[in-house]
Formats: sequence, structure tokens, C-alpha cells
Amino acid sequence: MEILRTICAADMEDIAVGGAIMGTGGGGDPYVGKLMAQEAIKAHGPVRLVDVDQFPDDALIVPVCMMGAPTVMTEKLPQGDELVTAFRSLEKLLGHKIDAVLCGEAGGVNSTTPFVVAAATGLPLVDGDGMGRAYPELQMVTFTMHGVSATPMVLCDDKGNSLVLDTVSNAWTERLARAATVEMGGSALLAFYSMSGAVAKKAVVRGTLTLCAELGRTLREAKANHLDPVEAIVERLEAEVIFHGRVKDVDRRTVGGFARGTARFEGVEEWQGHDLRLDFQNEFLMAERDGAVLVTTPDLITLLEAESGLPVTADSLRYGLRLKALAMPSNPQWLTPAGIALVGPRYFGYDVDYRRYFAR
Amino acid sequence: MEILRTICAADMEDIAVGGAIMGTGGGGDPYVGKLMAQEAIKAHGPVRLVDVDQFPDDALIVPVCMMGAPTVMTEKLPQGDELVTAFRSLEKLLGHKIDAVLCGEAGGVNSTTPFVVAAATGLPLVDGDGMGRAYPELQMVTFTMHGVSATPMVLCDDKGNSLVLDTVSNAWTERLARAATVEMGGSALLAFYSMSGAVAKKAVVRGTLTLCAELGRTLREAKANHLDPVEAIVERLEAEVIFHGRVKDVDRRTVGGFARGTARFEGVEEWQGHDLRLDFQNEFLMAERDGAVLVTTPDLITLLEAESGLPVTADSLRYGLRLKALAMPSNPQWLTPAGIALVGPRYFGYDVDYRRYFAR
Repeated sequence: MEILRTICAADMEDIAVGGAIMGTGGGGDPYVGKLMAQEAIKAHGPVRLVDVDQFPDDALIVPVCMMGAPTVMTEKLPQGDELVTAFRSLEKLLGHKIDAVLCGEAGGVNSTTPFVVAAATGLPLVDGDGMGRAYPELQMVTFTMHGVSATPMVLCDDKGNSLVLDTVSNAWTERLARAATVEMGGSALLAFYSMSGAVAKKAVVRGTLTLCAELGRTLREAKANHLDPVEAIVERLEAEVIFHGRVKDVDRRTVGGFARGTARFEGVEEWQGHDLRLDFQNEFLMAERDGAVLVTTPDLITLLEAESGLPVTADSLRYGLRLKALAMPSNPQWLTPAGIALVGPRYFGYDVDYRRYFAR
Repeated sequence: MEILRTICAADMEDIAVGGAIMGTGGGGDPYVGKLMAQEAIKAHGPVRLVDVDQFPDDALIVPVCMMGAPTVMTEKLPQGDELVTAFRSLEKLLGHKIDAVLCGEAGGVNSTTPFVVAAATGLPLVDGDGMGRAYPELQMVTFTMHGVSATPMVLCDDKGNSLVLDTVSNAWTERLARAATVEMGGSALLAFYSMSGAVAKKAVVRGTLTLCAELGRTLREAKANHLDPVEAIVERLEAEVIFHGRVKDVDRRTVGGFARGTARFEGVEEWQGHDLRLDFQNEFLMAERDGAVLVTTPDLITLLEAESGLPVTADSLRYGLRLKALAMPSNPQWLTPAGIALVGPRYFGYDVDYRRYFAR
């Protein structure tokens, strides 16, 4: 098996930063996931990152992730053991040795949590994920569009409770797992969407972990070379800067297990006199500039600190913070009718059709 | 194995009526459970009722029940298949053939649903239950006091979703199963509290199904012989009539998966000028007459129609209905410190200590 890259504890810094950029404001505090991954790598050794094509068609590949409102996930730092427990329980249930670990989403805590399981089990980690970004609900993965069932799924909490779900649809998995997660205190650890190598080769959004590492390195090198870090990220991602402004107002609630809300920004410098509004459900879902829709899901919206270029999650928005907002085209898998039905603006209750509103 | 009695479809009439009397206002509409049991017995044959002492100590005995707000359970009549599915899934999970079916509670729908599984599987049904009445929460069974874990538990809904729970305590089982049940639309089917014959002999409240059948027959015979049916039930149960009155007001909500509320009655005849207040959470939990506490859980409160003697559930209370309220002593297992901690008035939020307030 050809190894793309061996990831040691220090490499997790770049991956966590890059994951937060791709996480579109959600996916939890990257710092939390990074610490969990670093502890696991220090204890068990580095993680082998492998392209999905390296696995045989009959390989068994299993994604793991943390579920819950990012606000809560950050307050309730898990030890990582529960994630390995969920993974091993699902393996036992499937009655078949698992060949590789996979990321459910490229975003915040969940770009890094799969490293915990890969390190602890010694299994390779697929370089890719099921979103190419972060989304708030479990069924919102490319795997769903390729007919992969989320169940059997194992869900564990930090107290020692566990659930095995077997549902009639991935939307039902989301409903029942969300209810359990809320009852468990707002966060839980999952192993689910077990799939064959053949399906993974079609479904996985490829290269997202390598991309995350590159984004982290890009920021680090821009800083070292006294270059504009935001500009460096914009170039690498072929993104468009849609706003430059200060946080004016944030309305944020934890509702039904999600961090929901709206953030408003007032423009500075080139955007003086303009305003931006972002709606979020864990992730940023829609951007309106001066009252006009500018970006909607599945396209990506990311906030970077104007000076440092560091990503800012919806949870860490606070009054006065100076930011640049970036828009990026979605992975093409989400632009199909099936993709728009799963994650388009109307699913989230916005009365607009999806289209590429911004220039790039 | 000595068989106490063979139960055919017609016998379910008496058992359902008796179950509603023991159900203390909750446990769901006995009519629903009766129909399910009768269908199963017609399809598969009669059910053998067996005393718990007839089973060897290493027998595997498994209770089944329906969970949810009675209001919802009655609206969403299940086919019974899901209950058998839950039972068979748990058997597979335990990796051991189950020897007998058991009732979780003696009350309403759940005195009759275990007959569905006993008929469909051909297994004997233990003459007893885990409450000697009905209670609203899963951990409120004598099994908990004997160290039996509610999990592994299988929970199924009518759509084809299923969950396997493995929890750190029976209180956590209640929390997680309740959240799932609410999400599933308010009702679900369970197999849980698997136990050995040795434990069942200590834990089971004995003879409750025979008692239910006798109560139904007592009512039927009183009617045939033009005797006072309420008086006949009072004699058989050594109960006390604590009130005779009309429903004045019912405040009922479905909250957190429970039917909660308060019913007020104004006295007639011997109780003219007096009033009664009943608080319920699925089941009647506390009775206050003229503002003074008269009965609290774990003692039993049951309402009978004054003329027919037929039991009236909290769900079917309506303005003007003329009723007699009965108080009955709890099974002694609930009067221990462990029992009072599980089901005493303070657990339900009432600021009173348990004592035997009424005369009998």
C-alpha cells in the first residue's frame, strides 16, 4: 500500500487550522480535536494517510466523528476512548475486520478526531471525507447519495452509555441520534456509514486531509514570509473575498442540539458603508450582503481574521472582531439534484434557490 | 412444567379490564392491548400462564412492553410485529434461547402486550410483573431493586427503526429510551431487563395476571348478578373508597413523552360538598381530598365508573363523568427505602413524605 504521507503529532497543527477553514464556521473548535489527535499519536505512533484508490474493492472502510453542538463539544472534551469504543463495537457488530478509517466531514474537530482512531488502531486513514466541508446533519454526506446506509451505527457518550441504531433511512438516523445526543448532554461519538472500498472510491470527496494540511502550512509560511495570509489562502482555494468588516451583532442559541443563529458585520476599508449577514446552523449556510443573497449552501462561506488569516468559527464570533469573509465553490457532487435536495438552501428553510451567486 | 391456566382470546377481556384497574389510570387504553393480544392468540394459539417457581434458576426470562404517552399509544395502534421483532432481536443479541416472557407492568396495554409475544413465540408467560401496578418510567420496576440491568435493551418503532441500548444505569436507559420514543412519534416497543429464573423468583411481583383476570371476572359476575360492581372490586382488592364524585376539570398535556396533568372532582351523595384532586404522570400519583394529602405513590389510586365499575384511565377522564376513587396498599417491595427512592412522592416532585394516609 502506497502511503501518501505519515502524520505525526506536530503535523496536526496545520491539519486543524486547515480543517477549521474548510469547516465553514462549524465542526467544533479545531483546538479540541487537535489535542485529542496529538495525544493519540504520541501514545500509539503516527498515522498513515492513504489515497482511497489504494484499497481493494472489498475493503471495509468506516468513518468516525463527533456529533453535537460545537459549543458543547468544546466544553465537554472527550478523552478519545469513546470514539475507539464506538469504532471497535461497530467492527464487532459487522463481524468483519475494518481496513481503514475515514473522515465524515472536513471541518474543525471532525477533520482531526479520525486520527485518534487511526492512531489507536494502527489502521490507515483515507485522505478524504464525506462532505468536502462541514454540514450540521448526519445524512448530509456524499455517502447518502451513493446509497450507503448510516446504520448499523454505534453512538457512545462520555459516561459509558452506548446505542446501536438500525434505521430505515439516513434522515431517521439523524433524528434518533440527535435526540440521544441531546439527552447525553449535547455531544456523542459515532462510528457509522460502513462501506466497501468500491463504494468509497465513488463516494469520497478526495484529498481533503492533504488540502487541510496545505492550508495550515500556507498560513504558517505566509506569516513567516510577511505575506498577507488571507491573500495566500484565497489564492490556494480560488476563493472570492466577499466582505471585510467588523462583527456588529451575534444572535446565537443552542436549539434542538444545534448552535443556530445569525451574525451581522459592518464593512471597513473597501467595504465601508456596506453590511453582511451570515445565518448559521453550526455551519455558515447563507450570506447576504446589503440585503441581497450572495452565497448559499452547498457553496462554502468561511471567515478569516483579517490580520492573521486564522479561521473563525461561528462559536468564537465576538463583537468588534475584524474579519474577511470568503466564498468558495462547492464540490460538484453537491450540485446535483440529489445534492441540492440534501443540503440546498430550501432544506434549511431559506426561500431561495441555489445558484452560484458570487463571481468566482 | 405445571401450567396455571391456558389463556385463549376470550380470556383477554377480563385480563384487560383487570389490568386497567391495576394500572392506576395509566398504562394505556386496555382496549388497544386486548385487540393486539386477541389477534396474536387467534393466529398462533393460546398462551400458557406459569408460576415463576416453575422455571429453573438458570432459565432466561425477558419482559416486553410498549413505551410512550398512553394518549399516543392509543392513537398509534401497533401491529404487534414490532414487539416480537424487539424480543427476537434481544434473544439474538443475548446469544441464548429465551425460556419465558414476562410483563414489565400490570396495567392497561402492558398487561396484555406480553401475550402477543408469548402467543407468537409459543413461550410460556410468567404470572407476575415488575410493578404490581403501572408506573411511568422504565427504571421503576422491582427488577431494578434486585440489581437487574434494563440493558441490553432493544427498542423498535412502527416504521422499522430499531435501537440497541447499553447504559450505565436503568435511569439512563429511561432517559435515552424516552428521547428515542418521543422522536419516533411518542410510542415504541421494548424487550429489556433479561434475567435468570433465580433472580425472577425474588424480583417478580407474583400472580398479577391471575389477579387481573379475577378482577375482570368479578366485575362481569357482579353485573350478571345485579350486585354493586364497585363494591365487589373493593372487597376483592381490600381497597378503600376515598371519594365519590363528578369530574369538574382536567388539565392534561403531553410533555417530555408523558401525559401529565391534574384532575379535579366534586363530591356527590356521601361526599357532597367535598372535593378531590388527582395528579398524574401517565399514572395517578397523588390524591388530595379537601386540600389534604390522602394517597401517594407507591400506594395505588384507581378510578371506577360509579355505576358500571369499569376502570377509567387518566386519558379518558371527561367533564361530568361520575366516578368512585379507590385507594389500595402498595406491594411491600415498594415500601423499602430503595422502593421509596425509586417511586416515592419526592421522586415525582411532591413535597410530602410517603406514609399510609388512608385507613385500610
